[in-house]
Amino acid sequence: MISSDLDKMFNPRSVAVIGAKQIDPKTPYLGMFGSLQQYGFKGRMYPINTKLTEVNGVKAYSDLSQLPEPVDLVIVSVPAPYVPEVLRDCAGTGNTRIHIFTAGFKETGEPRALALQKEIETIALQHHLKVVGPNCMGICVPEIRLGTWNNPVEKVGPVSFISQSGGHAQDFSNYASKLGVGFCKIVSYGNALTLDSTNFLEYFAQDPKTRIIAMYLEGVADSRKLFTLVREINKIKPVIILKGGLTEAGKKAVASHTGSLAGQEQFWNAFFRQTGAIRAYSLEEMAHTTLAMLHLQPPRGRGVTVMGTGGGIVVAASDVCSRAGLELPPFSKTMQKALRKFVPEAGNMIKNPLDAQPIIMEPEQLMPETLDMIYDAPDLNMVILSLHMDWIGPVATPRLTAAIKTLFPAHLKDKPFVVCWRQTRNDPEMEMVCRKMESELLDAGIPVYRNFEHAADSLSRLSGYHEFLAKQKSFMAGSAETSEMRLAS
Amino acid sequence: MISSDLDKMFNPRSVAVIGAKQIDPKTPYLGMFGSLQQYGFKGRMYPINTKLTEVNGVKAYSDLSQLPEPVDLVIVSVPAPYVPEVLRDCAGTGNTRIHIFTAGFKETGEPRALALQKEIETIALQHHLKVVGPNCMGICVPEIRLGTWNNPVEKVGPVSFISQSGGHAQDFSNYASKLGVGFCKIVSYGNALTLDSTNFLEYFAQDPKTRIIAMYLEGVADSRKLFTLVREINKIKPVIILKGGLTEAGKKAVASHTGSLAGQEQFWNAFFRQTGAIRAYSLEEMAHTTLAMLHLQPPRGRGVTVMGTGGGIVVAASDVCSRAGLELPPFSKTMQKALRKFVPEAGNMIKNPLDAQPIIMEPEQLMPETLDMIYDAPDLNMVILSLHMDWIGPVATPRLTAAIKTLFPAHLKDKPFVVCWRQTRNDPEMEMVCRKMESELLDAGIPVYRNFEHAADSLSRLSGYHEFLAKQKSFMAGSAETSEMRLAS
Repeated sequence: MISSDLDKMFNPRSVAVIGAKQIDPKTPYLGMFGSLQQYGFKGRMYPINTKLTEVNGVKAYSDLSQLPEPVDLVIVSVPAPYVPEVLRDCAGTGNTRIHIFTAGFKETGEPRALALQKEIETIALQHHLKVVGPNCMGICVPEIRLGTWNNPVEKVGPVSFISQSGGHAQDFSNYASKLGVGFCKIVSYGNALTLDSTNFLEYFAQDPKTRIIAMYLEGVADSRKLFTLVREINKIKPVIILKGGLTEAGKKAVASHTGSLAGQEQFWNAFFRQTGAIRAYSLEEMAHTTLAMLHLQPPRGRGVTVMGTGGGIVVAASDVCSRAGLELPPFSKTMQKALRKFVPEAGNMIKNPLDAQPIIMEPEQLMPETLDMIYDAPDLNMVILSLHMDWIGPVATPRLTAAIKTLFPAHLKDKPFVVCWRQTRNDPEMEMVCRKMESELLDAGIPVYRNFEHAADSLSRLSGYHEFLAKQKSFMAGSAETSEMRLAS
Repeated sequence: MISSDLDKMFNPRSVAVIGAKQIDPKTPYLGMFGSLQQYGFKGRMYPINTKLTEVNGVKAYSDLSQLPEPVDLVIVSVPAPYVPEVLRDCAGTGNTRIHIFTAGFKETGEPRALALQKEIETIALQHHLKVVGPNCMGICVPEIRLGTWNNPVEKVGPVSFISQSGGHAQDFSNYASKLGVGFCKIVSYGNALTLDSTNFLEYFAQDPKTRIIAMYLEGVADSRKLFTLVREINKIKPVIILKGGLTEAGKKAVASHTGSLAGQEQFWNAFFRQTGAIRAYSLEEMAHTTLAMLHLQPPRGRGVTVMGTGGGIVVAASDVCSRAGLELPPFSKTMQKALRKFVPEAGNMIKNPLDAQPIIMEPEQLMPETLDMIYDAPDLNMVILSLHMDWIGPVATPRLTAAIKTLFPAHLKDKPFVVCWRQTRNDPEMEMVCRKMESELLDAGIPVYRNFEHAADSLSRLSGYHEFLAKQKSFMAGSAETSEMRLAS
């Protein structure tokens, strides 16, 4: 059973690192074993090195057969030519769950390396080895401090990430965790010798701690299986996918990176259309979308209210919303009249977008009523609060932050809202103030973006996901009815 | 002559501020007069206030007639209903060059305010007043410390910016100046009562200190004139334009912001195609493109070499280059062979993109030869150096920075190159190291981007601009030949 093997690999009580090295202070790399140590892995650790008696202060072993127990996970970090022998050792000692870090196989395109990959594939299949890799960074589970790269993410949460690229595994988790996204399980699987994206996807689908699944894919061994799995899993746990190598140049790069076959733009367009998986075009987009999916309720429509300040910004916001497929329903006459009571004419706009500095500067007094109006309007489904921090200043910001944290959730209830801010002036004090606001809001579970485009794109993807689910449900209900009618007739 | 008036307005020896106010420490706004003072305007300043005898320590006057001289520029900051009277005072005292900050005119859409704008327009035309505004932030000239908003940009340089929006005037100049872009003249002109974008454009075209012109446009009074001007000026000084309000929602926002008529996407598509002006879709894009235009020579083609590290990043880079319309010509066999001498197989790629950590980590030894190969390859026209700072670390970064500053310009000569970096790990020390590297490279005149997309888009726009010029030249040469042939026959 792959899933029980994966369970052990993602929750190992013991890990052996073959080719464990002393940390070299001259390079920034800690190596596999050093990374595990520094992260503070909670299980038992066995460095294996044929020449050393200890590695970074831990007793070392010359080979797997010397270990006091078979381990749940073997990490292989030896030069490529030695990998076949190591795999045979693994099989011979009952160590079947393996992460091969080593590169220099299929991805090089060199005949010698291709043969080497073929050789290890044969060994793996013959002995039923479960292999993550080769040519990858492997597994990271923040909760148990399992991680094989320098300083993996700290924040534990319900997002799991399947990444063919080790760099992307690190960058996505680092970037998203700065947005307050916490991680459950991360895997970088490189050349996908025996375990491919679909295996991890199946496992994360069943994993009770995983609520959202993000994926970075280059090639897929069984794209039909991926399609079927994503279509089903995406209904229960949102699946957000970045597909690399769709352009001609990207396809070539994929071949050199993980030796995979990419391309097939048309297939992938259909894939996203039919599975309803959320499509991202960059790691940043994937992180921004994950942030929105993590915190926001389904919106009841695409109508968004933009509350902000600055005419030029409001024009840009309108253009961006339009291009992102969001609507800006006009405020009703009643609402405009009510707003006019506390928003003066000059320098403000009481249309949608709402450009009203007084509301931002006197949030305690003016925000509750404004939010109630938005809540009561059935076509205003979401809110983007767009803040120009240079105009708000360091004195007003803490008051505004507090108001956002309490007033928005209380008055808007389940209507999704996000904050977006900009601060362009060269002003180190204000930069600090902004960062503080951002981290307070993120800690309160409010999605915050530094760029209006990111806010709008994330809300658009949130909407798209829930629209797809709703359409599917009504289609299913329709089919059920039809079947019943057929039975009745 | 408008140009001599504009010359006085952009280089005033004396400025009067009507409605000058004391700075209120309770708000972050300094006001028009306070901003002028704090920025350190080098000319004579006259605050005018009917109730105060001095403003922020400077002797105040009750009205223009009390001033010891007619001034080069009057700034009007009184409530809208008083503006007509102020304009009549201006005309009566021979003060014809005016910036009206006051809002509450055409942009509100209210009948009363429309009538008020009509009234001031009549006065202005009758007395030949040259008006920037109303509803705008006015003029900023860093060289003479003329500026009417809080903390205008410090950096003096050859870029001038024409912006219908005051917020955008500030944000663009702030953002771009952080990228090392220096400014010559900035104008925010709001409702464009008598002076419109075309007047400023003509003036900046003749201004010897302006080398690049950026524009943010909402509506244009005479789009035919704008077209003719941009077509001619763009040949000599690159014109980079962000057009706001092209979507339906954006068009509505423009009407509320500056009372202008926007929209007409088709017209603008043709405008950009035929003038060769560089199109931007956001302030950030405009700033990134300006940075490239400022420092880079014309590339001889669209072939780009990406030098970087990380397989996933290389795949993303390839996809992004393809989408940006850049080519990634494969390295010749000879070049690959030469690279293989110092770039090991595992974990690296000696294709284009070049994923070779050793070159980055040993730049003094390995960079010169690599750059010479790129310089010698006729189809490799530009270089993006893509750096993953988390993998380079704080120790190697200063060495790498020094190498980039000396080696790239020396070996690549006139081939455009830019640096792009990412740093995603939560590591305050490394953040500081990255910022230092960025500012050193920017100071050395090397365009630096924090996002690969921005680097690729900027190089694509740089290429597009020079391709347009080249096509025009060959077309002109062709026409000349044809004419000569006709004459000969």
